[in-house]
Amino acid sequence: MAKFDLDTIRHSTAHLMAQAISRVFPDTHIQFGIGPVIEHGFYYDVDMDHRLVDEDLEKIEAEMQNLIKENLSIERKVMSRTEALDFFKDKNDELKQDLINSFEDDAEISCYQQGEFIDLCRGPHVESTGQLPKFFKLLNIAGAYWRGDENNKMLQRVYAACFNDKKQLKAHLNFLEEAKKRDHRKLGKDLELFHFNSVAPASPFFMPKGAFVYNRLIEFMREIYRKYDYQEVITPQILDSDLWHTSGHYEHYKENMYFSRIDEREYAVKPMNCPCHMLMFKHYKYSYRDLPMRYADFGRLHRYEKAGAVTGLTRVRTFCQDDAHIFIDMDGIQDEITKLMEMFFICYEHFGFTGIKVNLSTRPEKKSGDDATWDKAENALEEALKKSGHEYFIKEGDGAFYGPKIDVEIADALGRYYQLGTIQLDFQLPERFGLSYTNAQGNDERPVVIHRALLGSLERFFGVYLEHVAGVFPFWLAPEQAVIVPVNNEFHLDFANKLQSELFAMGLRVKVDDRNESMGYKTRQIQKSKAPFMIVIGDREMENNSVSLRKHGEKKTESLTIEELKKLFSELDAEFIPAKLRQS
Amino acid sequence: MAKFDLDTIRHSTAHLMAQAISRVFPDTHIQFGIGPVIEHGFYYDVDMDHRLVDEDLEKIEAEMQNLIKENLSIERKVMSRTEALDFFKDKNDELKQDLINSFEDDAEISCYQQGEFIDLCRGPHVESTGQLPKFFKLLNIAGAYWRGDENNKMLQRVYAACFNDKKQLKAHLNFLEEAKKRDHRKLGKDLELFHFNSVAPASPFFMPKGAFVYNRLIEFMREIYRKYDYQEVITPQILDSDLWHTSGHYEHYKENMYFSRIDEREYAVKPMNCPCHMLMFKHYKYSYRDLPMRYADFGRLHRYEKAGAVTGLTRVRTFCQDDAHIFIDMDGIQDEITKLMEMFFICYEHFGFTGIKVNLSTRPEKKSGDDATWDKAENALEEALKKSGHEYFIKEGDGAFYGPKIDVEIADALGRYYQLGTIQLDFQLPERFGLSYTNAQGNDERPVVIHRALLGSLERFFGVYLEHVAGVFPFWLAPEQAVIVPVNNEFHLDFANKLQSELFAMGLRVKVDDRNESMGYKTRQIQKSKAPFMIVIGDREMENNSVSLRKHGEKKTESLTIEELKKLFSELDAEFIPAKLRQS
Repeated sequence: MAKFDLDTIRHSTAHLMAQAISRVFPDTHIQFGIGPVIEHGFYYDVDMDHRLVDEDLEKIEAEMQNLIKENLSIERKVMSRTEALDFFKDKNDELKQDLINSFEDDAEISCYQQGEFIDLCRGPHVESTGQLPKFFKLLNIAGAYWRGDENNKMLQRVYAACFNDKKQLKAHLNFLEEAKKRDHRKLGKDLELFHFNSVAPASPFFMPKGAFVYNRLIEFMREIYRKYDYQEVITPQILDSDLWHTSGHYEHYKENMYFSRIDEREYAVKPMNCPCHMLMFKHYKYSYRDLPMRYADFGRLHRYEKAGAVTGLTRVRTFCQDDAHIFIDMDGIQDEITKLMEMFFICYEHFGFTGIKVNLSTRPEKKSGDDATWDKAENALEEALKKSGHEYFIKEGDGAFYGPKIDVEIADALGRYYQLGTIQLDFQLPERFGLSYTNAQGNDERPVVIHRALLGSLERFFGVYLEHVAGVFPFWLAPEQAVIVPVNNEFHLDFANKLQSELFAMGLRVKVDDRNESMGYKTRQIQKSKAPFMIVIGDREMENNSVSLRKHGEKKTESLTIEELKKLFSELDAEFIPAKLRQS
Repeated sequence: MAKFDLDTIRHSTAHLMAQAISRVFPDTHIQFGIGPVIEHGFYYDVDMDHRLVDEDLEKIEAEMQNLIKENLSIERKVMSRTEALDFFKDKNDELKQDLINSFEDDAEISCYQQGEFIDLCRGPHVESTGQLPKFFKLLNIAGAYWRGDENNKMLQRVYAACFNDKKQLKAHLNFLEEAKKRDHRKLGKDLELFHFNSVAPASPFFMPKGAFVYNRLIEFMREIYRKYDYQEVITPQILDSDLWHTSGHYEHYKENMYFSRIDEREYAVKPMNCPCHMLMFKHYKYSYRDLPMRYADFGRLHRYEKAGAVTGLTRVRTFCQDDAHIFIDMDGIQDEITKLMEMFFICYEHFGFTGIKVNLSTRPEKKSGDDATWDKAENALEEALKKSGHEYFIKEGDGAFYGPKIDVEIADALGRYYQLGTIQLDFQLPERFGLSYTNAQGNDERPVVIHRALLGSLERFFGVYLEHVAGVFPFWLAPEQAVIVPVNNEFHLDFANKLQSELFAMGLRVKVDDRNESMGYKTRQIQKSKAPFMIVIGDREMENNSVSLRKHGEKKTESLTIEELKKLFSELDAEFIPAKLRQS
């Protein structure tokens, strides 16, 4: 097998799938779109009247195995543009004709044929179907517009995993299985955290448990802000379009904004907090002694996204960010970035994200500000990154036109990378708003602005984190921290209720399940609810003033005295504040 | 003097003022609008080219005293409608002609004349200007549209206080002085709590200290919610107009709503949370065991108000409420109202409001729902009010068409009444949204909804409360709880900083003022900032490991050991939770 690289194998397996589809539906006119190799496998776009369902995928897979056994030889055929056009015209294949029409006039066009199946393809391919390993799996069917254009026909896209060996395929299928179980849309529904309603597309309704987690995340950030001397502010949401002209959003971001007319004036619903913070900074006359001034804002933002682009909590039309703007002088940047890196790592590690990647994006070709300013800013960022001791990557020329930036990506429990944090220097906005502070010499000076977010959109973070922990929140964040189950309501309920009210008085979130259901049923329900702990109270527990404690996901129970339980719970609850910040 | 009642005296003094204005500006054409008696005095609307300023008021007052000395007799003259029209036409007085034109054809029209001054007036008046007591004071000038219609001319409205005796006038002027000092717009600016910007009319920008207080009020309400078993939710802000048709807001409240068009659909920015909560309740299939279900929501609301109607924080275009909707069955209402009354009184007393008035509004003539339902609901409310042991007043027929309600008013430190809380029963919305829960017999049943708010709009409450405490927040709510001043930075700063970080670690908000300014200057600044405490550290304090503590508004200082200070501060901070709720 080593004769062919994985890409070739995947691509030939894609053709194998297309051929198998044709064989499974011999009486249907089928056109194939593109069938490229992707990470972990491939897909193929199919145009046919029959709407493919999961059962079809099994049949197609079986046919693919047959085709491997048939060991058909795969042959490359070269045609001129005209020959190719005629060939696919005869086959009544409009998609391929459309593709060929977009090629250069003198293009040499290759097709690959195996048995009765032929498709336009650049290659390379294996030599015969028998050479293909059998380690593929057809995964799912999705809709996709021909050439990605929503004005074109919608095709059926069949995704497949494909590997060189059985172990890799199995590992990947396990990963997919696990990712499916963790899908935040599913967990959000099962755990009654949030849902959606067509009256407000892509705008989550957070139910009580979801709203608790959401607010607790904000409380967590507030605690971080307290330690790092951020000042939270509250700013309006609907502001005159004049402001958005000043900030440049009207020019560059209008398509994503919501507008409303009032009293003959045009207003926009804010998509970002920055312009409000510029106005606030301008409202007071700050001096160098007040800098850095750090405004934080959990203001609700609205950004229009096309209906096709939104999904779950990860891409929504309304959200809050853990957004802050730091007003600073150029000389203060390095120290500030050092603090920010410390803050970022403390936070991400607190949420159990370990694979943290840091990227520094430097000046692009088109930029505002002179080279000396950019030199200074980029050096400050890089020195701070060096000082932080973490590895970082440089993305040459990838900065915004208004300043260099640092992106931070994290890997979740399944090894998937997400960009969460950004630190963006901005020389432009302070200019546009004519900001100044009084320097030590008593003169007006223009500050630099740092836009920065750790979690980014709280909605998106909620989704990513929910998948990361598979719905099992840490004790400090769990909407329901424990459920107390009396073995028999008649004898054990009073004791359970008393324990509940003592834990409640400690500020904990514990309920008693006193329904007339079996212990087995309740146990399963509590497991499904993913509450961190289940507490059972029976005769023995009452005699010993103790509890029987079972941690989520574990089978064994532990016996603890009430005092030990309270101590354990208050220690776990105190983990709300990261250990590194607890004593400062 | 007892010969005339206060209203007559006030009204005659209004004429006195009008005559004085004519004398002070003899060469100006002046028309007078209406000049009615109001609480504490009167006003008169004036139309003249000269724009009145505060200095004019003094001259007019002096002329009024002269007119009293002249003791002009005041005579009533009766005219027919035609005579009156001719008379005021001759005087070129369009306002009066406009008024007379609105009278019945056969109206008998009276004017009152004193010396050269004559004005249309129903009377009665005193007999001569000499009978008038001198206890009046011209207060201020405001703009007012003729007949309150913004399409009409803008007149100048002169306000005056007027009383029967000197003591009452003085008390009222003191009250006004005190109210002016407490004006929340002034305090908001002086204490750097909030400000406004023309890019977002009537939409406050809360600066760090204001945002702190705002968020702390929400935390306070969350603590109350925890004790009373409310479930906070988070709901979208921009929702399809379909929803507002269903809820009835589109029909009845459209003029006050903001709209935006997206993807060919009309959306409205929510002015209220209720429709979102109806949808949420409907999303799950609740049973009688889940009731009462209490959804709380601090969602930001937007309501359009005319530019002329908005002022400070008390009337804004965007705000949050401590809003909740309780879904309940009819039989549960009485107990729920009892709980609500307890909650209301605990809260209001916690904020130091003592004069609390409770009003029960009963069925109006036009109503939805049958009489039996209304009987049951009104009885439940009244029984609960009786049980609460507080006095209440019945406003016959003052309920909404969709259900009876309870209003709660509070008196602030200056004795001014504000309506804060409401409890509104609603038979209508559950009907419109087709809500149901499963009752004990397994059948669908329609719940009743209780809309309720304690503080009402947080913005308005912020304004009212700021005036109530004259900017001096209680320790638990103060954005800055204490300022530490080292007598001499060289010797005492380290000690001050150490104390600050110990208090910070306790979760307190304390800063060190280490500027190179005199103790006197710093003391005055701290007084002005209204921080609850000032802590001075000098030699003696360092020797004794103590502090010198001065409470805001007091002159004396007290010596406390560091341990005593910490104990005092943590006790004061714990007052965040009302004493009555602390042990449950």
